[in-house]
Amino acid sequence: MKKYNKVSPELLAELEAALGKENVQTEPEVLDRYKTDEETDPKMFHLPEAVVRPASAEETAAVVKLCNKYDVPITVRGGGTSLADGAIPVCGGLVLLTERMNKILEMNTDGLYMIAEAGVRTVDIQKKANEAGYLYAGDPCSAESCLIGGNLATNAGGNKAVRYGVTRNQVYSLEVVTPTGEIVEVGSRLKKCSTGYCMEQLIMGSEGTLGIITKATLKLLPLPPYRLDLLAIFDDPAKALDMVPLIAKAGINPTSIEYMDNSYVRGTSEYIEFKDPPYKENGIYVIVTLETFNEDELDMKMEQLSSLCEEAGAIDVLEADDRIWAMRRNCQESVRLISLISLTDDVVVPVDKIADTIKYIMKIGEKYPFPVPAKINAHIGDGNLHIVLCKGELSDKEWEENVHAFHEEVYEYAYAQGGRLAGEHGIGAKKLGYMAEFTPAAELDLMKKIKLAWDPKLILNPGKIFEC
Amino acid sequence: MKKYNKVSPELLAELEAALGKENVQTEPEVLDRYKTDEETDPKMFHLPEAVVRPASAEETAAVVKLCNKYDVPITVRGGGTSLADGAIPVCGGLVLLTERMNKILEMNTDGLYMIAEAGVRTVDIQKKANEAGYLYAGDPCSAESCLIGGNLATNAGGNKAVRYGVTRNQVYSLEVVTPTGEIVEVGSRLKKCSTGYCMEQLIMGSEGTLGIITKATLKLLPLPPYRLDLLAIFDDPAKALDMVPLIAKAGINPTSIEYMDNSYVRGTSEYIEFKDPPYKENGIYVIVTLETFNEDELDMKMEQLSSLCEEAGAIDVLEADDRIWAMRRNCQESVRLISLISLTDDVVVPVDKIADTIKYIMKIGEKYPFPVPAKINAHIGDGNLHIVLCKGELSDKEWEENVHAFHEEVYEYAYAQGGRLAGEHGIGAKKLGYMAEFTPAAELDLMKKIKLAWDPKLILNPGKIFEC
Repeated sequence: MKKYNKVSPELLAELEAALGKENVQTEPEVLDRYKTDEETDPKMFHLPEAVVRPASAEETAAVVKLCNKYDVPITVRGGGTSLADGAIPVCGGLVLLTERMNKILEMNTDGLYMIAEAGVRTVDIQKKANEAGYLYAGDPCSAESCLIGGNLATNAGGNKAVRYGVTRNQVYSLEVVTPTGEIVEVGSRLKKCSTGYCMEQLIMGSEGTLGIITKATLKLLPLPPYRLDLLAIFDDPAKALDMVPLIAKAGINPTSIEYMDNSYVRGTSEYIEFKDPPYKENGIYVIVTLETFNEDELDMKMEQLSSLCEEAGAIDVLEADDRIWAMRRNCQESVRLISLISLTDDVVVPVDKIADTIKYIMKIGEKYPFPVPAKINAHIGDGNLHIVLCKGELSDKEWEENVHAFHEEVYEYAYAQGGRLAGEHGIGAKKLGYMAEFTPAAELDLMKKIKLAWDPKLILNPGKIFEC
Repeated sequence: MKKYNKVSPELLAELEAALGKENVQTEPEVLDRYKTDEETDPKMFHLPEAVVRPASAEETAAVVKLCNKYDVPITVRGGGTSLADGAIPVCGGLVLLTERMNKILEMNTDGLYMIAEAGVRTVDIQKKANEAGYLYAGDPCSAESCLIGGNLATNAGGNKAVRYGVTRNQVYSLEVVTPTGEIVEVGSRLKKCSTGYCMEQLIMGSEGTLGIITKATLKLLPLPPYRLDLLAIFDDPAKALDMVPLIAKAGINPTSIEYMDNSYVRGTSEYIEFKDPPYKENGIYVIVTLETFNEDELDMKMEQLSSLCEEAGAIDVLEADDRIWAMRRNCQESVRLISLISLTDDVVVPVDKIADTIKYIMKIGEKYPFPVPAKINAHIGDGNLHIVLCKGELSDKEWEENVHAFHEEVYEYAYAQGGRLAGEHGIGAKKLGYMAEFTPAAELDLMKKIKLAWDPKLILNPGKIFEC
């Protein structure tokens, strides 16, 4: 790994001149706040040497130019909700916060777009669109606390990807500060474009390694006024899983299809103190959301979907109310009732392979000494699953070895199905080793060539995705 | 522009050893066949020095490695339907034909994908999907003669982009031969992915400058069984144009919205010998296609759409039969009745700006000495318009000067609206100068850095998009 210079008094003085003294911080208690994101394992923590808060693309560009001059790395941080150590400054240097770039600059319902700075909370974008009768379709589970810039940098996923795609599908264009400190607009507010390289899609999902996103022009869609959430309950995971491809092929076009295994049905209902969820003892839940532009269409599709569920062997089909969605939203948090230390993983496979993949994971899980079997919830309509492992009373060594062995088996299986390491959490620093292991050398080489061509001094977010 | 080596007997001998003697051609009559694509201006023609026809990615990689060794450029050619001089070997060297890589390798209706080699005709992919009850949604107007590899390389558009997006939205992954001759698979058959850089989107639309696409995994969709084509006729272009944003906002989700000005209504009906098209003398046509998964939904949307058209001031609303679509398809060809030499341009603007853009073009067109006013047809639902200029009896000099002055005005206006030079035809060699003129230097610089990092000897398709 490259050795960088330490943050020097000269650099600090130049940063203060560019951003104002109050926006360059080195107090230990401030630095301590930014040593981690959602990571809970102290071994992964890393203190920054300074924290900077630029207010604009111009100030961000000034910081980047200074870091090139002084050879100091920058880690960009949005809401700090990364589950892949994406916001941890693993090589030291600066943490750059986007929180002062927090304005929605324009909402245009004729042109169906919204222009937002990188530091706007995702939920605020969703709300502003909804209030005007429109939809911003990006919807990561962390929408309440994450910032749109982070969504763009990791290509965040979420619950609505089945119908609307992921974050990269919600974007017209980006304002980006390049690794050498130039301000560039990439992409355009067009439905069709064949005018040079598609760099906006390259930058999205590059996890801050190819540029700092400071502003985005996002797509708005007409908001379907009619909605129904259906809960199909199964007593056999295989039957629940095998229903998904049938929905995809029926042309029903649901907004989301979510899956919770029975351990989550029990765990989350206890966590949110919902006493009698249906079929608590043995139920496996599939939640399907339908949204339409008129009521007749909704009725029609709902009938079609209900018969599909019954043919697939559902033991009951109900309307899913808010409490069912609250259970789904609290999957992650409910794990605390079982184990203080746990690990959430994010894997993705083709939609037609997710049933077999979940069955395989359930099977291999049995041979590991984790206190409870691997817990599985999934954005099942898009092939993206989250596996939670609990540490319980295992020793550190047992825990680490078994987690690693389990992940090796899971990733190997996923890749054999055409899957990948991360559907929505990104690689960050957490999966760097697996990325090197599972990505063909020639493919990784192409990525590294772009990185080196744009960021010859490796200033932006080093130690993420791959080592250069 | 870089000076390359000439194709030498040594290179030819090595190419023959790699591909077989019959797949390396230098006969003058063969070279002559590949000096142009859809370009009709002899000043743009350029002879290749040899034509090669590899049968696989491996053979393609061998050709690329040899061209790196001998420092000879390669221009890749699919169906040769480029309207931007994309297949013309402007720097000499080899023309590489993909026509022997012409197999559909797999169609999987469970996984909803098709794997096709680069040399398969687009229409054969569409047909194979349709016959099985599925849809491949890429649909450039040249589908009968273009090859899928060319669609991918230029990010072809077409009529269905309103609902389904452009070619880059129909693709899971690509097999690519890199500019240094490595074979790489980029992308994956996933609905969500956040595992490293999104290189498949970078390569699509790069017009053969970043890699030779040899194979693609394409998305299939369920084919909507119900369809209706509606023809709304207006006597005022402004009213026709102003209806488009209303459709977008109503949530009707049409498959296509096509616009023909009255000069095309008259010209194409004469060209296809359709005697009495409705409102031939003054009609402006807007064709809207709706497709649904059940009949009631179709009826419902059709009613909604009809009232929209009437409110917008349509003088008549009819069903559009095959003859109306035949008129639309023959726009390009019908121009021959007016002028043997003509020029088709491709510009794109945001959907909410296309009405003003067409009005502007009609207005400025009046001051030019072209024998007939600029003719306009448009994929109006996605902001993409085609302007045809006719030379008639103008001298070469008058023609060139006026075309250039007209284009400068049009592009300047389009960029001021957030538009771009090309919605679907690409830049090729034809718009290289305009690309340099209208693209900010920092943006162009990022593109060039990628090109140089991946193709340090500038072997692939030099003289296209930009000069390095």
